[in-house]
Amino acid sequence: MSLFSTTYDVIVIGGGHAGSEAAAASANMGAHTLLITMNLQNIAQMSCNPAMGGIAKGQIVREIDALGGYSGIVTDKTAIQFKMLNKSKGPAMWSPRAQSDRMMFAECWRTMLEQTENLDFYQDSVNGLLFDGNKIIGVKTALGLEIKSKTVIITAGTFLNGLIHIGDKTFGGGRAGESASTGITEDLVLKGFEAGRMKTGTPPRVDGRSLDYSKMLEQPGDESPEKFSYLPTTKSLVKQRSCYLTYTNPKVHELLREGFDRSPMFNGRIKSTGPRYCPSVEDKVDRFATKDRHQIFVEPEGWTTVEMYVNGFSTSLPEDIQDKAIRAIEGFENVKFFRYGYAIEYDFFQPTQLKHSLETKLIENLFFAGQINGTTGYEEAASQGLMAGVNAALKTQGKSPFILKRNEAYIGVLIDDLITKGTDEPYRMFTSRAEYRTLLRQDNADLRLTPLGFELGLASKERMDRVLEKQRKTDLLIKFLEETSVTEAEINPILEAKNLDLINQSLKLFKVAARPQLDFSDFKDLEKLKVFIAENDIDWEIIEQAEIHLKYSGYIEKEKNNADKLNRLENVTIPTNFNYQKLQSISFEAREKLTKIQPTSISQASRISGVSPSDISVLLVYMGR
Amino acid sequence: MSLFSTTYDVIVIGGGHAGSEAAAASANMGAHTLLITMNLQNIAQMSCNPAMGGIAKGQIVREIDALGGYSGIVTDKTAIQFKMLNKSKGPAMWSPRAQSDRMMFAECWRTMLEQTENLDFYQDSVNGLLFDGNKIIGVKTALGLEIKSKTVIITAGTFLNGLIHIGDKTFGGGRAGESASTGITEDLVLKGFEAGRMKTGTPPRVDGRSLDYSKMLEQPGDESPEKFSYLPTTKSLVKQRSCYLTYTNPKVHELLREGFDRSPMFNGRIKSTGPRYCPSVEDKVDRFATKDRHQIFVEPEGWTTVEMYVNGFSTSLPEDIQDKAIRAIEGFENVKFFRYGYAIEYDFFQPTQLKHSLETKLIENLFFAGQINGTTGYEEAASQGLMAGVNAALKTQGKSPFILKRNEAYIGVLIDDLITKGTDEPYRMFTSRAEYRTLLRQDNADLRLTPLGFELGLASKERMDRVLEKQRKTDLLIKFLEETSVTEAEINPILEAKNLDLINQSLKLFKVAARPQLDFSDFKDLEKLKVFIAENDIDWEIIEQAEIHLKYSGYIEKEKNNADKLNRLENVTIPTNFNYQKLQSISFEAREKLTKIQPTSISQASRISGVSPSDISVLLVYMGR
Ligand SMILES: Cc1cc2nc3c(=O)[nH]c(=O)nc-3n(C[C@H](O)[C@H](O)[C@H](O)COP(=O)(O)OP(=O)(O)OC[C@H]3O[C@@H](n4cnc5c(N)ncnc54)[C@H](O)[C@@H]3O)c2cc1C
Ligand SMILES: Cc1cc2nc3c(=O)[nH]c(=O)nc-3n(C[C@H](O)[C@H](O)[C@H](O)COP(=O)(O)OP(=O)(O)OC[C@H]3O[C@@H](n4cnc5c(N)ncnc54)[C@H](O)[C@@H]3O)c2cc1C
Repeated sequence: MSLFSTTYDVIVIGGGHAGSEAAAASANMGAHTLLITMNLQNIAQMSCNPAMGGIAKGQIVREIDALGGYSGIVTDKTAIQFKMLNKSKGPAMWSPRAQSDRMMFAECWRTMLEQTENLDFYQDSVNGLLFDGNKIIGVKTALGLEIKSKTVIITAGTFLNGLIHIGDKTFGGGRAGESASTGITEDLVLKGFEAGRMKTGTPPRVDGRSLDYSKMLEQPGDESPEKFSYLPTTKSLVKQRSCYLTYTNPKVHELLREGFDRSPMFNGRIKSTGPRYCPSVEDKVDRFATKDRHQIFVEPEGWTTVEMYVNGFSTSLPEDIQDKAIRAIEGFENVKFFRYGYAIEYDFFQPTQLKHSLETKLIENLFFAGQINGTTGYEEAASQGLMAGVNAALKTQGKSPFILKRNEAYIGVLIDDLITKGTDEPYRMFTSRAEYRTLLRQDNADLRLTPLGFELGLASKERMDRVLEKQRKTDLLIKFLEETSVTEAEINPILEAKNLDLINQSLKLFKVAARPQLDFSDFKDLEKLKVFIAENDIDWEIIEQAEIHLKYSGYIEKEKNNADKLNRLENVTIPTNFNYQKLQSISFEAREKLTKIQPTSISQASRISGVSPSDISVLLVYMGR
Repeated sequence: MSLFSTTYDVIVIGGGHAGSEAAAASANMGAHTLLITMNLQNIAQMSCNPAMGGIAKGQIVREIDALGGYSGIVTDKTAIQFKMLNKSKGPAMWSPRAQSDRMMFAECWRTMLEQTENLDFYQDSVNGLLFDGNKIIGVKTALGLEIKSKTVIITAGTFLNGLIHIGDKTFGGGRAGESASTGITEDLVLKGFEAGRMKTGTPPRVDGRSLDYSKMLEQPGDESPEKFSYLPTTKSLVKQRSCYLTYTNPKVHELLREGFDRSPMFNGRIKSTGPRYCPSVEDKVDRFATKDRHQIFVEPEGWTTVEMYVNGFSTSLPEDIQDKAIRAIEGFENVKFFRYGYAIEYDFFQPTQLKHSLETKLIENLFFAGQINGTTGYEEAASQGLMAGVNAALKTQGKSPFILKRNEAYIGVLIDDLITKGTDEPYRMFTSRAEYRTLLRQDNADLRLTPLGFELGLASKERMDRVLEKQRKTDLLIKFLEETSVTEAEINPILEAKNLDLINQSLKLFKVAARPQLDFSDFKDLEKLKVFIAENDIDWEIIEQAEIHLKYSGYIEKEKNNADKLNRLENVTIPTNFNYQKLQSISFEAREKLTKIQPTSISQASRISGVSPSDISVLLVYMGR
């Protein structure tokens, strides 16, 4: 038996965040999987900042974890700082974020992948695809190997024809010091795919020993840090490393401007679009000319390293400008560079060329995930990887695809946005993209998704049991609150202490606890509650769930209703290859767009830009509703 | 102050084994040092097998440690297995060897370097050198930076115009997945340097889960493992990972031969010479056609990884041949490849172009260390790096160079061999290269070298104090043995148990202990000795020293005398730029060679091949002896 004489179920090209989750998911679903990547030493590299999560992105990491992916666990195991962002806002906005030790992160990912059954590894560069008509059947590598498989997932990140820019210098490369990848784009274009170019950038890394932190604001982690994974295999941090906050200033901006004529962004050498919401510092200075300062977060790259990531200073200006301008920042007067910032241009494929399963419409059994779909960010990449891994495995098993709805997960929003609307600039997730963000909270991703992950065979029994237990205890606590009366004598001292209106008759506990000015910690000395909590072994996670239920159930119910209504439209499916040209009563633009996107439901059709409510009415009538 | 507006004392190009030791040494000697390397994530990568030490190489690691270098400490901290090789032979042959966790090794090196004062880091690729006449004054980088320095050490390893071969495929690269380096060779050649090409190779890495270890012989580590560093900061291993031994066979050889016509080694595509003592498997099959098997050691690449290094199977045969042939090895029937073996060709510089200090003869303040000098092996590279680092620092401090003599260290032998004889093939160290190997033991590297390292300011006071204490206690123990009498009643039971001739009168203990059939453990119940050892807190290291003294002092003294005699010739110096052409009475060949090498002493002159004893007599007369 020769090495690659077997046909794999799934080949994953690329071991970045998307590829690693894809490989883990498909292997864990029982598909015989091969991960091919250029350098096995560089698995799951954090190309840019050493952090996972953040607003809307933290929710995605928890969703990945709930489904049985690895990103949450790896982040927890390698975290050096943890913060729950937006804690002062409502729970829909709470967003976990962790800094990781960059080297440990990659090592931990590799170890976890190696411990995954059904997963093989091979170091080489894929430079071509094997087709049988409109089906993919394998890949070709730089060494000349042909490896067969039933499905292929491409997760090539920023590597496809990657071009690195610093000032007026340009190098081929997929990341600083790593080769670009050629051949894949070319093969896909021949098959009729539409390829585009995008760009992204990264800030300099500097020597922490050369910074003056006394001029910056220390940003410690949370006092009682949480963690990402719902599993007890990871623990919250006991020790943390701090970040530091400083600011740019008019002098910095002036120095940056001196390099604008040599900026590949401004002089037209970079033509592709960068991430609007992760702009380079020159972009910020240019676009917000009236702002006289921007935040700069100095973030450690690991537990022991002195290397620091200069968050907020992404740039592709010439190195002499980077040098001069950064020194004008408070605390950076004597900075030493480890490496300069740079921008990278790479090929992507308009994601409207994909189905909800992330399978391409043109080529059967071929899936795309990650940056190749026009997204930016580790979390966006990882979640797509997981979904592509699941769907490739399901495909080989003859099962129908696994699709998350917009009211079920940020991951659902992400994929639906991508394939329905496409993207002209690197797409990143925001809470504002989700219409049901009260439903899609970071605290309930397990309740929302673990049952689905368990059914798929991806989330473990242990995970599922924990969810059932969490749900059971939450229900128990809510019931207790709803059924237990409290007297004036018990409650008024608490209200008095907070200067709140007193009660003048016994009330059910939930009535009092639902008051927005109070939270559970205010009741910590209430004897009945104390006894109940102790007897039923109720932890803070359960209390949090109950509290959210008490305070937000109104909003939650409303969103659920809205979602149900819209989901009814989701159930009005449109047949594949439906001929919109015959519907002369809808607008020309709508006909064009609908033909291109080929939405699978009326609801998806309604989200396509250029398709109006009246177009939808026509469609609904046509579909017999 | 702009980043690189200061002139560094020392710039080290390349963060391999040579560059890392060089940077540490020069910084620790107080020189303001900059380490420039292509990828700061890849510092001190083990390009080939994840092991340090071995025969003669283990001695070098202990010498590096004794002088205050880092290789021994890093190896100890990341070791997964330790063995003292040749323990059945005399102590001159004992050679420590450790397997390390590849990823931890690189990480630990980086951490130690970051914790070194006076050392800056910069990620970029050097592609040119700055000269002022025949002096080096700095470097140019791919980003276009010019960085000034008083001295430069080049440690570019296998990267200079590196070319990777597998079967009939060729890629530019310095190592699999990493770019080659251009510009440096070209600049040096313009300055009159003679550049050559060499090649080396590496075996495939495979998935340990696909091997059948039951068909192999387990090779555990030592039962009581020692360690490399003389410092107590590192500890011996408690847990170890095993290696496994298997063999090639006639079938494997036959399958390998099928690829010979496509072998870049045999069909002439690789013209440069490879390491004769680390031959590729195709070389072994070809050169030792009558041998029907060769050893294959399967070595783990780390604590948890399933990746295995196939020691003994280095090859650049086409991947289909690697595939077929390796499967015919017992235990490899179902092997899965992580990556294929390959060969690499790279530029080196004949080391006869160097002085003993590793400074080049042509360009002042320019030093070479490591693979660039035609050597192979991490230990050879690391030790040269350390010496170049020391000497570059000394040069900037206006001090005379630090040179180790052949009777002082393997490092002395290595450098003297290189600069005196040059090399036509990758040079590696053997015990047979050292004429004083009884002096140059691994157990006494600290006694030999720490005083020198301490004087340089490289070895710490703690190190020096330990050496003084070791020496004091050893002397104490020896004195005790020499002065203490033992009676028949005390000793004869021990001799009887070993079936040895009994004594019939009281004797000094050292007389008995010197018997070759006995070792110290035989005396462990001798009351006097027990009391002495306990009272004086004497450990096994001291006992080992005393024992070696008792048993080998004859040989040791003889070698010392020989060395002294030769060192007298070493002290007969030859003036720089001596004109040998006027010495018509020495042979033509000797005149040519002497002119080229420009030996600094009569002793060095005598080691040049082609220089006869009668040539030396003429020289001696001329020098007035
Ligand atoms: C310079 C830079 C700056 C960035 N800045 C930001 C930012 O500011 N904000 C942000 O959110 N995100 C940023 N990112 C993006 C972030 O790194 C990516 O979104 C994320 O890593 C994408 O994950 P991925 O898995 O799709 O691809 P990657 O992480 O890029 O991984 C791709 C993997 O595929 C492998 N590969 C590629 N081609 C082949 C082939 N042909 N054969 C075999 N293997 C192959 C590569 O070796 C690599 O392992 C930046 C990335 C870069 C490089
Ligand atoms: C494929 C392969 C097989 C080998 N097989 C064996 C073997 O069988 N036995 C054995 O004993 N040894 C073997 N070796 C050799 C061993 O790896 C080297 O002897 C040792 O690593 C040399 O150390 P070095 O420090 O000289 O160079 P390297 O370890 O090669 O390090 C060179 C460093 O310099 C950097 N660099 C190079 N050029 C530049 C530049 N212009 N600018 C900035 N940075 C630069 C590189 O990035 C790298 O970090 C092999 C090496 C390779 C690559």
